This record gives sequence, structure tokens and C-alpha cells, in this order.
Amino acid sequence: MRGVVLHAPGDVRVEHREDPQILKPTDAVIRVTAACVCGSDLWDYRGINTVEQPTPMGHEYIGVVEQIGEQVTSLKPGDFVVGSFWASDNTCEICQAGYQPGCPHAEYVGLGGAQAERLRVPQADGTLVATPGEPDADLVPSLLAASDVLGTGWFGASAAEAGPGKTVAVVGDGAVGLSAVLAASQLGADRVIAMSRHADRQALAREFGATDIVTERGDAGIAKIKELTNGYGAHSVVEAVGTQEAMMQALGSVRPGGHVGYVGVPHGIAIPGEPLFFTLSHLHGGPAPVRAFLPDLIERIWNRRIDPGRVFDLDLPLDEAAEAYRAMDERRATKVLLRP
Amino acid sequence: MRGVVLHAPGDVRVEHREDPQILKPTDAVIRVTAACVCGSDLWDYRGINTVEQPTPMGHEYIGVVEQIGEQVTSLKPGDFVVGSFWASDNTCEICQAGYQPGCPHAEYVGLGGAQAERLRVPQADGTLVATPGEPDADLVPSLLAASDVLGTGWFGASAAEAGPGKTVAVVGDGAVGLSAVLAASQLGADRVIAMSRHADRQALAREFGATDIVTERGDAGIAKIKELTNGYGAHSVVEAVGTQEAMMQALGSVRPGGHVGYVGVPHGIAIPGEPLFFTLSHLHGGPAPVRAFLPDLIERIWNRRIDPGRVFDLDLPLDEAAEAYRAMDERRATKVLLRP
Repeated sequence: MRGVVLHAPGDVRVEHREDPQILKPTDAVIRVTAACVCGSDLWDYRGINTVEQPTPMGHEYIGVVEQIGEQVTSLKPGDFVVGSFWASDNTCEICQAGYQPGCPHAEYVGLGGAQAERLRVPQADGTLVATPGEPDADLVPSLLAASDVLGTGWFGASAAEAGPGKTVAVVGDGAVGLSAVLAASQLGADRVIAMSRHADRQALAREFGATDIVTERGDAGIAKIKELTNGYGAHSVVEAVGTQEAMMQALGSVRPGGHVGYVGVPHGIAIPGEPLFFTLSHLHGGPAPVRAFLPDLIERIWNRRIDPGRVFDLDLPLDEAAEAYRAMDERRATKVLLRP
Repeated sequence: MRGVVLHAPGDVRVEHREDPQILKPTDAVIRVTAACVCGSDLWDYRGINTVEQPTPMGHEYIGVVEQIGEQVTSLKPGDFVVGSFWASDNTCEICQAGYQPGCPHAEYVGLGGAQAERLRVPQADGTLVATPGEPDADLVPSLLAASDVLGTGWFGASAAEAGPGKTVAVVGDGAVGLSAVLAASQLGADRVIAMSRHADRQALAREFGATDIVTERGDAGIAKIKELTNGYGAHSVVEAVGTQEAMMQALGSVRPGGHVGYVGVPHGIAIPGEPLFFTLSHLHGGPAPVRAFLPDLIERIWNRRIDPGRVFDLDLPLDEAAEAYRAMDERRATKVLLRP
């Protein structure tokens, strides 16, 4: 099969890879309908994370089940499925509490490289969720978004306790940040403040339910959030970047007793204890338990209540993966969909 | 009046200080019945915090109202009161949400030095809570405990979401940690694990409701907590020390999706972003909103449902404050009560 492999920073190739096989009785192999490039893939692409060997890329996927292991009970070949990037048993205490990436049996699905024609998904019953049927073409981007960015943004907004009566600020205007804006709005927040400097992203944030846009960053951004909230700060802040600056902006923008949900994969972050202490904030986040949200998200998408696929602003054949990475690296695209 | 003043590390003196006055119409002046030495006072005493000038000490107090400003409405001279170490208006959105130390009008009561015969308490209506009457002598230590260590431990246990069905681990066996054990037990936790190496503190932890004692620290302590919780980690962990080691022990001991409540005043803590992210924990804490808990705590003490005053293992006249500090510094005492 064809699949995307990163050979070195900036060196993305689509090449022949071995077809995945059922290795364990709980596995499924799916034919990938659509995959995409994640902001976190850029850490590798840019050489900020070390890439020691040619690495299959991709961890966001939707597709059709082709084969199942003999212990898989909830799926059958032909099912259209959305998966999460962490495989999990979905039966243990941790999974039942909604924290599948912390499952003692968690495995990173991305090791298989989802930017490919086929993908082995471990613990298929615990990881994949079937849609009600074959989706209409226009639902494909949104279902794909559910497999990571929407699920991650939703977790960020949930972790920040977005809801009725709340003012929610979102730090980061990438696909996850924009998805968090959508989630906060869907969860009933009174006011959703998108922190963004880019006109196109501001426009999408508005469509997703943002009521206010703040273009300032750092201390000026914090001051602006305070100004918009009677000096108190936001009830809820989503950190969707993963840098020290973004985390400190989030912690500075939240009111005492408020909630910060952080979903940006941290790079070089160290949270100083004393200022954190005096924020009196709640801090919650981590790798998103997408699996916990998928049934609800699929239903919202299927019923066309939300259109999170709008975050994709470039749609390319898998063979043009190198251009997909370049476009995201150069910020010409927010999020690129790849079709094998 | 007489009051405790720290002149330099290790140099505690009881000396003449000016009697406090009503400075604002919202002030009260109280005659201090009992005060005490806090673990956080030791940071100054040991020279870890810089002491730049002779500093009145103490922020935990109970006493009798002597004078009130003309705008004070909820108290009258003669009332017996318990106060919190942060003065607050108790009317703003932040106070109403239960986060009084984050009140925009918050003032640190300790600036006045509660280890003294009298104390000015700003924003008396928002800060002091009257007891149902003059307390019996045996209730004095417990009411004093409510003004800080009990309220702080209670906040730690609440922030860690201690409650029915939960296993709670407490890092730190000082007066706050022991109070957190009591709080976790009172809040209905199934299992309360006290992490302590000292036989006397272990014994009090047991009396306060600890079901298990773990003597190991660091990675060995984490391994022990995992062993006691089917490998998952505790649902709730209270960090009641304020050091990097204690914070990392707390974060290592909590299960994915679990809650860490941290109330140790941080010294030199920097929480690394990446490991924090992968704990998937909830982290909440800060300076305790004792005021929010006082009505409930006073009622529990008044009805003799709890006896948190047991944390005091030395009871001295105010004039022996220097010995009180020495005893705590040398760990001969867990917590020292001072009587003016």
C-alpha cells in the first residue's frame, strides 16, 4: 500500500509500505477513507521533535473495516468507523471514567501511520465507533475532525468546564482552538472569546460561535480578557497551543476559582508553582479521551447540528502529502485533509 | 500590647507593639484568645524567605471583638469570632463562588501580626465568623485550627474531590496534611492513605480517619500507592508540603482523570508540562478560602463531631513564642498554640 513516511525534518514522502495485518485477535484493519495532518505532526516535520528513523505518519482517520480479529464483537467488515488516536480497552476503571488515553492498556494508534491506504487499529472494540451507515460525502471532513481536533477541542472546553453562564476564552486559533470555540458554544457558554490574529480564522471562529475576538497576546491579551470580564478574568480558558507563552496567557486570563483546560501538547513548558498557586485555578487537560466523546460527536455531526469539518481548508490526494505538510508549516492552511 | 516580631532568621521576640486601631469603617479590632505558629512561618524563621525588616508574625487567630468600624453590621463587641487569614469582601462574584483569597479586595490579615494581644481585621463582615457563643475551653484549640490548618486541609481534600467511593492519599504529615486526612474522612472517602514516617503523626492520622499509612517517599511512595489501588493510583491526592518532591509525588500517585488538591505554599516548584499532561489529572489548589468553609467547620466543632485541635501538641503562653518557633523548627512539635 501507499503511506506517508517522514524521513527527516522537512522530508515527507509517500511510498510503498507493507499492508497492515491482524496481529492480535482484538485488532481491526481498516481501509482509510480520509486522514489528515495534525499540528502535532509539525513538531516532527520541523525537527523540534527528533526523528531517529523513517517514521510512518498520521493518527487521525476514518474508514471502512476490512478485517477483524476473532475477538472483535462490536464491529464487522464493511462498517464505517471513526477512531481515536489512543487505542484502549474501554472496559477498565480508567476508561469507564472517561480517560481512555490513561488506560493501562493504552496504545498509540499513530504508530501504524494513519496517513496511508490501510491502518491496523489495536483493541478495535475499545477504540473504534461505527457510524449509523455510510456517510454522505459532505460529512467526511466533519467525521474526520471528530477523530482528533474536534474531540481534542471538545475535551479542552469540557476540561475548562465551559457551559451556561460562563465566559470562555480560547488561546490558540489552530484547528483545535477553533474546535474548542465550537465546543464551548455547543456546551452553552454565554460568551466565547477567540484569541486570534488571523482574519480567516477569526471568521471561522465567529461561525463556530465566538462572540468576541481578542487579537492581543501575552500580558496585553490577559489585560483584554480582564477588561471583557469586569476585571475578574474568564470562568473558563482553553489552552490549545502547548507553549509556555500560551500556558501563562491561559493562567493569567482565568479568574480565581476558574478552570483552565489545556490540550496543546506541551513543548518546553514548566509551570511556576507560586504564580499557579495564587491563580486559585483548576487546571485539567492532557491527551484527549476522544473515544469518550465520539458517540456524542458522531451524532451531532450525523444530524448536521455541527459542521466541524470547516477547519479543513485544503483537501489533497494522499500522494500530495508533502504539499500538505508544507502548506501547514507555512501557515497557508489551517488543516489539510488527505484522501488515499 | 505585646506581640511577636521576627527580627532575623531564628530571632523571634515578644515585644511591645502599638495597639491596633480601627482605620477603616469596615474594620474590627479583636482581643486575641489564641493564636499559633504556622508551618509557613518557618520559611521566614529559617531564612528561606527573606525578612527585610522586623516583621509582626502570625495569621491564625480566634478572639473576642472589642471594637468595630461604623459600617460593620454582622458583628458586635463581645462576639467570639474565628477569622480567616485573607480578609475579603465576601460579596463579589469571586467570593460568592467560594474563592475569597482571590477577591479583588483581598488583604492579608497576617500583616497585622496575629501572634499578639490584639489584631486589626479588615473587612470584618467578610472575614470573621461569630461562634454561637463563648466556647468551652476544650473547643479553643479546634476553633483556632479552623482559622487555618483545618480550613486549608479541608480545601485540599475538597480540591482533590475527596468523597464517597474515593481513595484519597495525603502527601505531608504536618498539621495541614493531618487536617486533610480528617477532612477526607469526614467527606466520606472510602479509604484515606496518610504518607508519614513519624509514629506520633501516624497515630493522629489514624485517629483522624486514615485507613492506611505509607512510609515510603518519592518513587517508592508512588509505587506503594499504585500497589494499594490496583495499579491505577489514588482518585484524590492532597499535596500539603509545597516542595517539588511533594508535588511530583502527588502527581505520580494520582490516577488518570483523578484530582490533586495542593495547599502547600510552593517554594521553588516548577511543574514540568509534559509529564503533567500525561497524568491527565485535575490540579486545583492555592491559598485556602477558609472563609468559605468556616460556618460548616465551626458547626462541626461546636457539635463535637470533629476535634481538629488535636494537631496542637504544645500549648504555650505568648511570651514563650521563641520556644514555640524552636520546637516547630526542630520538629519537636507539630503545631504550637500561643495564648496571649
